[in-house]
Amino acid sequence: MIRRLAIIGVGLIGGSLALALRRAGYCGEVIGCGRGVANLDEAVRLGIIDRYETDPAQAVQGADFVVLAVPLGAMQDTFAVIRDVLAADAVVTDVGSAKGSVVAAARAACGEVPPWFVPGHPIAGTERSGATAAFAELFQGRRVILTPTATTADDARRRVRAAWEVAGAVVEEMPVEHHDEVLAATSHLPHMLAFTLVESLSRMSDSDEIFRYAAGGFRDFTRIASSDPVMWRDIALANRDALLTVTQRYRRDLDELMDAIARGDGQALLRLFQDAKAARDRFCH
Amino acid sequence: MIRRLAIIGVGLIGGSLALALRRAGYCGEVIGCGRGVANLDEAVRLGIIDRYETDPAQAVQGADFVVLAVPLGAMQDTFAVIRDVLAADAVVTDVGSAKGSVVAAARAACGEVPPWFVPGHPIAGTERSGATAAFAELFQGRRVILTPTATTADDARRRVRAAWEVAGAVVEEMPVEHHDEVLAATSHLPHMLAFTLVESLSRMSDSDEIFRYAAGGFRDFTRIASSDPVMWRDIALANRDALLTVTQRYRRDLDELMDAIARGDGQALLRLFQDAKAARDRFCH
Repeated sequence: MIRRLAIIGVGLIGGSLALALRRAGYCGEVIGCGRGVANLDEAVRLGIIDRYETDPAQAVQGADFVVLAVPLGAMQDTFAVIRDVLAADAVVTDVGSAKGSVVAAARAACGEVPPWFVPGHPIAGTERSGATAAFAELFQGRRVILTPTATTADDARRRVRAAWEVAGAVVEEMPVEHHDEVLAATSHLPHMLAFTLVESLSRMSDSDEIFRYAAGGFRDFTRIASSDPVMWRDIALANRDALLTVTQRYRRDLDELMDAIARGDGQALLRLFQDAKAARDRFCH
Repeated sequence: MIRRLAIIGVGLIGGSLALALRRAGYCGEVIGCGRGVANLDEAVRLGIIDRYETDPAQAVQGADFVVLAVPLGAMQDTFAVIRDVLAADAVVTDVGSAKGSVVAAARAACGEVPPWFVPGHPIAGTERSGATAAFAELFQGRRVILTPTATTADDARRRVRAAWEVAGAVVEEMPVEHHDEVLAATSHLPHMLAFTLVESLSRMSDSDEIFRYAAGGFRDFTRIASSDPVMWRDIALANRDALLTVTQRYRRDLDELMDAIARGDGQALLRLFQDAKAARDRFCH
């Protein structure tokens, strides 16, 4: 059970976790924190939080469970502000899409990765953002990856795992670096490709007409390009090395495809498309 | 009204058009044609066609409206087989995703682009294929592009337009080359990117685990990679020039993004993501 829950950043992820824990009767008071007062007012109106503070140091007062759901670029400052005012029994987790940078931020702000901090990442989301996008069912059956470090306290890890399970998630653990490689491939790279496709088409001289003929496949394909630009800037910078590695690989494979098209190699194209279809049908049914 | 409709290739597109025209009471007998007898039997069972032939020359006998819904690579042979056995009042259209190659196929098989042929392309589809994927509502409110040539008869163009409108589509006309450029950007390139992404990830040593963590965004993004490999091989080859041009552009834009990530240029990334989000939100609401 959580006595007082502090959600730093009441957006899609933070807001949905608060709703899920509330609905399960798993937490007492819920304190929100953020920079946008309009969003926080909306979060109160929607019953996501009971009240809010705009200063994280105030928001975490007396909280035994703190969720950092701020952009990756704001993590270090947030650690610096809260580290000395946390309750003695407080556990802190985050929801950042890249874990190496959050661990580095915690280390930079606290000298070492604090025992009360459990890095985490729910593999869930939509392209929408803000408190109005939050819903209690977001994590039902979805994976949450925790990446505890050598200094993470067992008790903290257990409490964070328990909360996510109450929210309906399937919790797994893996090393920080491995998380960042897997997510670079399955999430960060696809977002880069989708942003680039929309940008590339919008730069064409007849872009208005081009978008007019975009059908359902295009909409599905580019949905993730409607995601929050600040969040994705931070992710691209935070997971730079793993993202560049996987993107370079992708670029080589795209070159291979272009070469096959250029030389009219129908056999190579068919083999490639068949392999891709088989892989997708196997994994995404 | 159509007296006898011949659908050469009873898949998602051809089958759906037959269903839509039947449901509207716009056609009499419907003859299917294809190489896969199991698919044709299924099409009869589903009420998509009344009967079938496996030879296109037989299938078009007495038909006043013929739809070529075969892979692009089969167009020229089909024109060659049917051109001398068509009914005197027959009009022929096709549904190929690249129009330059179909016009070239018609010209190669018939000496010139015949007056009875109206090149066409419905901007609709799903990643599924075969007669079982067909449904009458597929074209409701969707665009169909006709690309008549200088030799196309006005009467033929009018009859093809009328049939698509009965099926619920919004019919537009544009030059062949322009169609192929627009579709390269909005459909063919996204398919190449999605096939390449799935292929690229499946080549990684830990691909099983990687796919396990693929979330909703990845599923949406790669849905089109489950499309028919033979069809897409043919499209890539048929629209080679326009596709290579737009893919080279995309590749340059991807390099620009990678450079921004590599040098840690948050401003450039933010601007790019903001532009892309704004463009997508504007066009795909």
